[in-house]
Amino acid sequence: MQLTETRLTESHRATLDQALEAIRTRAYWSPHPEHPKAYGESAPAEGLAAFEALRRTRFDLDQPGTDDWTGAEVSPYGPELAIEYPHPDVEVLLPAMRAAMPAWRAASPEIRALLCLEILSRISARTHEFAHAVMHTSGQAFMMAFQAGGPHAQDRGLEAVAYAFAEQTRTPDAMDWSKPQGKRDPLELRKTFTAAGRGIALLIGCNTFPTWNGYPGLFASLATGNPVLVKPHPRAVLPLALTVRVAREVLAEAGFDPNLVCLAAERPGEGIAKSLATRPEIKIIDYTGSSAFGDWLESNARQAQVYTEKAGVNTVLIDSTDNYQGMLSNLAFSLSLYSGQMCTTPQNLLIPREGIATDVGPKSYDEVVGDLAAAVGGLLGDDSRANALLGALVNDDVRRRLEGAAELGEVALASREITHPEFPDAVVRTPVMVKLDGSKPEAEAVYLSECFGPVSFAVAVDSTADGVELLRRTIRDQGAMTVGAYTTSPEVERAIEDVCLEESAQLSLNLTGGVYVNQTAAFSDFHGSGGNPAANAALCDGAFVANRFRVVEVRRQA
Amino acid sequence: MQLTETRLTESHRATLDQALEAIRTRAYWSPHPEHPKAYGESAPAEGLAAFEALRRTRFDLDQPGTDDWTGAEVSPYGPELAIEYPHPDVEVLLPAMRAAMPAWRAASPEIRALLCLEILSRISARTHEFAHAVMHTSGQAFMMAFQAGGPHAQDRGLEAVAYAFAEQTRTPDAMDWSKPQGKRDPLELRKTFTAAGRGIALLIGCNTFPTWNGYPGLFASLATGNPVLVKPHPRAVLPLALTVRVAREVLAEAGFDPNLVCLAAERPGEGIAKSLATRPEIKIIDYTGSSAFGDWLESNARQAQVYTEKAGVNTVLIDSTDNYQGMLSNLAFSLSLYSGQMCTTPQNLLIPREGIATDVGPKSYDEVVGDLAAAVGGLLGDDSRANALLGALVNDDVRRRLEGAAELGEVALASREITHPEFPDAVVRTPVMVKLDGSKPEAEAVYLSECFGPVSFAVAVDSTADGVELLRRTIRDQGAMTVGAYTTSPEVERAIEDVCLEESAQLSLNLTGGVYVNQTAAFSDFHGSGGNPAANAALCDGAFVANRFRVVEVRRQA
Repeated sequence: MQLTETRLTESHRATLDQALEAIRTRAYWSPHPEHPKAYGESAPAEGLAAFEALRRTRFDLDQPGTDDWTGAEVSPYGPELAIEYPHPDVEVLLPAMRAAMPAWRAASPEIRALLCLEILSRISARTHEFAHAVMHTSGQAFMMAFQAGGPHAQDRGLEAVAYAFAEQTRTPDAMDWSKPQGKRDPLELRKTFTAAGRGIALLIGCNTFPTWNGYPGLFASLATGNPVLVKPHPRAVLPLALTVRVAREVLAEAGFDPNLVCLAAERPGEGIAKSLATRPEIKIIDYTGSSAFGDWLESNARQAQVYTEKAGVNTVLIDSTDNYQGMLSNLAFSLSLYSGQMCTTPQNLLIPREGIATDVGPKSYDEVVGDLAAAVGGLLGDDSRANALLGALVNDDVRRRLEGAAELGEVALASREITHPEFPDAVVRTPVMVKLDGSKPEAEAVYLSECFGPVSFAVAVDSTADGVELLRRTIRDQGAMTVGAYTTSPEVERAIEDVCLEESAQLSLNLTGGVYVNQTAAFSDFHGSGGNPAANAALCDGAFVANRFRVVEVRRQA
Repeated sequence: MQLTETRLTESHRATLDQALEAIRTRAYWSPHPEHPKAYGESAPAEGLAAFEALRRTRFDLDQPGTDDWTGAEVSPYGPELAIEYPHPDVEVLLPAMRAAMPAWRAASPEIRALLCLEILSRISARTHEFAHAVMHTSGQAFMMAFQAGGPHAQDRGLEAVAYAFAEQTRTPDAMDWSKPQGKRDPLELRKTFTAAGRGIALLIGCNTFPTWNGYPGLFASLATGNPVLVKPHPRAVLPLALTVRVAREVLAEAGFDPNLVCLAAERPGEGIAKSLATRPEIKIIDYTGSSAFGDWLESNARQAQVYTEKAGVNTVLIDSTDNYQGMLSNLAFSLSLYSGQMCTTPQNLLIPREGIATDVGPKSYDEVVGDLAAAVGGLLGDDSRANALLGALVNDDVRRRLEGAAELGEVALASREITHPEFPDAVVRTPVMVKLDGSKPEAEAVYLSECFGPVSFAVAVDSTADGVELLRRTIRDQGAMTVGAYTTSPEVERAIEDVCLEESAQLSLNLTGGVYVNQTAAFSDFHGSGGNPAANAALCDGAFVANRFRVVEVRRQA
């Protein structure tokens, strides 16, 4: 065993303690550098070469029960990845994973946490390679794939490990219990408490953020003693396959069964998630994706604890501002980043039809919409900058929604095609903004459903109060990952805050600088609330980890 | 407002801190005296008088939306209670409860916790009155009703408050967040975090332990910011109605809306739990009762977080012992206490058909069964002592099961009728023990389902190893609240422990003194595991409280 307890402690215990402190204080902290240059001079070239070397190969993980090879990833930037991954015979693979549990349970919560940190640190060292893998599966621009797919995803994984460790160590390993009995001898018992994983965890990955959305569940389950079967989205296998490979290496080096982390790639159209999700061996499911399948999992995978992040309708309510330009710039960036393909991107901009008060005088509804359209246009006017911000459309469904948006209302900002200098087949489009009258039923049908992609709606509302009520209804009925608002009125601010408290949504107020409503920082910000229809869990809190294991107590006569 | 923050802090903060320390160390601790004499000389007479004064009255709680009065409790000891309780018009009551939420949310987790402790301390002061209420609804003997229905129930409520407080205060109220940006100014945000209750919580009470099983959910929900609607079992309304009355008094005195805690009594055969459980306002449900309705709740009340304690089959595996007499005495008490009407009472005693090794020489299967029957007979040979241990059968279903047990196999210990000196109508019966051959399919059908009440099965198994496998199958398929075992073999002990770790069950080993497999101590022992079919939650852990509220974050540009 090369990875001794001593070495693991020396390498990672201080980082674990810092993470535990960060989730307690919510102060800014990260051990994973955001800047590509922080990884060394040779890292960019080596990362690209490592990624290229994976293409047109068979990605062997040496898993038991591999009955076939499958894979047909095509980069949203054009190139085929042409990588084949193991397809599982679950009747062989699942028992092999289950057999790995006892030794993993017998390892302490601390050892499990430190091994998870070792996995994360090896992933961190290969962040450039992961960045290309994320870019060429999600369509994110390189810098975003690097940051969101690298350090930010690793942060979310580490955060989950910290919560898992804290939760498992709330109860001591053992206790000599003594209950006084007056003049008689006390009752005495020797009690032991063991955090025991529930069974095999299934991670169902998504196309847009395979690592960022995948790592919290993966590491939360592994750290609490459960084997994890990773079922990636068929168009975004590589980032998670690399993750599985690193995890298996670390586990084997430490003397544990590598089958604690396995990959289940699926054949085109196979829908393997559905059959896996209801297997009796599967006790935990983490899922990011459509509401339809998320709801199906919650209703049907009754043998498992199910954590879902589904669709929602994110709102920004614009009442007033003391920094009009800052507001426009901030919103333009939020609408543009990754072509609006984030679960946190605003969709509905609620603007009173009478207009708003600003630091540069009153602005009518039309002026606000026009100025915001101009701000987006300005931000993306330079093709090079536009490519760096937008990335590529992840799939044809998004393109079709974008192209259909012009029929939904009056177009305030038209989309334009941008050519990618390096990848001419990439579908790069600037966002479209459509004006809608909030009081019209036909408009309501449009803006009260998720239109995933670079489409936003400038919804004219009768008043701010009307907007606040629409916000409430939107969160309650459609769910929301994020809510934004701009106001200089304490009363309006209080009303919006009350809605978010009552309907359980995360609120960003008056953002005009370099923080955006669609971005959250691990260890400090909660991603989603887990209390509205967009998601039944938040990243990351006690509830996200506490039910992935159970504490088994043994009482012995002392 | 008489109950000021200062007074609450002075009265209860130290107790809360002690409770927080106890759940962390799992040491013995309780602020609620177990001995009736600890409550003062006049307390017994006053408690009885208070209980008697409630009979033949209308129990008015001054709740909104009371459309009728209902109640037909008959003591298992005979007397009619003849108390009428408010029946709700839920279209009026639920909105009134919802309206109480904002001020309760705005109170801090600490104020909520301290008010819960004030409620518990007023209940504690009336423990003698509650004891009669529990005795005459559950059929427990007075001393058990006093302890389990009084201090032990109050302990479990306080334990839930401590967990709720700890969980809500893991995140600070506010944080000034600053992220360095190299040479540029840091990004700065003012963040606030608020624990927000989910909505109205529904407590569905049970017949046998109305307070003990009800308090954890009631106080966990209330302490995390949720109004609680208490729907008692129609045969055990009074203990929870008294609880609701005390809670409403305390809340009103502290300036909060008393409708944060309401009672929903039901008309005979109304089945109000089913219609309440699927109301959109109900966001949390706590339930103790049959597996059929518990499973129905889990499947159908999808809008709510559902915590259930259902039926299970509890096993004691007897391999060997170095204290044969201690084992017999301990088991005899466990089988007799409250006529086996505890969810934790052992049902199946697995004994190798070749017999077992003991400190007084080898004992055959027949000898073990015979000696255990004799131990029970001896324990209950004196009618006065029998009455004090057994209490009354809670309902006719239990009596029918007891009377039918003789047809299930060879009777090793016959039940006998005992007359209660004070309550001649009470149905008091000693337990029956039936011998079954574990390898016979017709026997398996008997012992592998719950036979709630004073019926146990001495199941002959082929070997200890056979018993271990039967234990595993029983936990996995039927669920178990408790597992007991007797063995002097480290290998057997390890095998039994592994089964409990793998199938998630709480294990008591070699109990031969004054601690019994069917009793758990709050702050130290977990009641159930939440990981097998008998219950989806444990009392009490982080998972029991963490999803009763959500943390809502507001980020503001600094």
